[in-house]
Amino acid sequence: MDCRELEEYLYEQIPLSKTMGVQVLNAGWDEVKLTAPLRPNINHRDTVFGGSMSAVAILAGWALVHVRLRQEGIRGSVVIQRNTMNYERPISGDFTALSSVGDSAEWQKFVRILKRKHRARIPVNVMLFSEGRKAGLLEGHFVALGAEAS
Amino acid sequence: MDCRELEEYLYEQIPLSKTMGVQVLNAGWDEVKLTAPLRPNINHRDTVFGGSMSAVAILAGWALVHVRLRQEGIRGSVVIQRNTMNYERPISGDFTALSSVGDSAEWQKFVRILKRKHRARIPVNVMLFSEGRKAGLLEGHFVALGAEAS
Repeated sequence: MDCRELEEYLYEQIPLSKTMGVQVLNAGWDEVKLTAPLRPNINHRDTVFGGSMSAVAILAGWALVHVRLRQEGIRGSVVIQRNTMNYERPISGDFTALSSVGDSAEWQKFVRILKRKHRARIPVNVMLFSEGRKAGLLEGHFVALGAEAS
Repeated sequence: MDCRELEEYLYEQIPLSKTMGVQVLNAGWDEVKLTAPLRPNINHRDTVFGGSMSAVAILAGWALVHVRLRQEGIRGSVVIQRNTMNYERPISGDFTALSSVGDSAEWQKFVRILKRKHRARIPVNVMLFSEGRKAGLLEGHFVALGAEAS
């Protein structure tokens, strides 16, 4: 799944991603990297609305699990179960969201459980950056449902 | 501050609120109640995108502190510092977000610190409902900055 394919999928399936101006910069196994501009996400302080920071971070986390399952040849549907979000500094321009999962053993365990029980949970971290500085951190737990081979 | 005034403020200052179709049902001292429809917030499973659930909950939490400060005659700017969010069940229609703060002593302490130090933090809980059932819970910490009498 390349950047453009993921971007089109997001725009079609989650239209708020388009409204927020999200673009996909990387859709790889190790990370998904999204970017969004200030303007559609602006708040009363002329910085990025916290809800947009959370939403873009959730998209980046969700997309990483989605992309990896596709690469594994597994058709599973991914949803968020819970998250914590720290807003570390205000963002007054474009920002990026960079997602990652733990080590390979953790991922393999997730896939094993998903195949056996058709439901498994995986933690994903997403860092937000703007102007070269970290601006926030989301720690999310995502659940994959179903595990048919595609 | 009545519902309409808050709604106009949100639409103007945080345009994503308008895109998400947020409407203000109550803007009182005890609670702020917002509602939003499925359509602009839909995801790949035809339910409400987790990022929209978070964003509407953050708005409801933010608005309650904003409304209360206005009623206290304090001009302070409110931002979110951190939150946890639990997505308890999928939402497949309209949903509401209902925010509340702790007891009166907690609020008074917050106002006292804000007036003295021009910065204070307050926890706010926001419950999400759809079709009469609880669908999620956000526990947020908001920070108010500045405390000039208006």
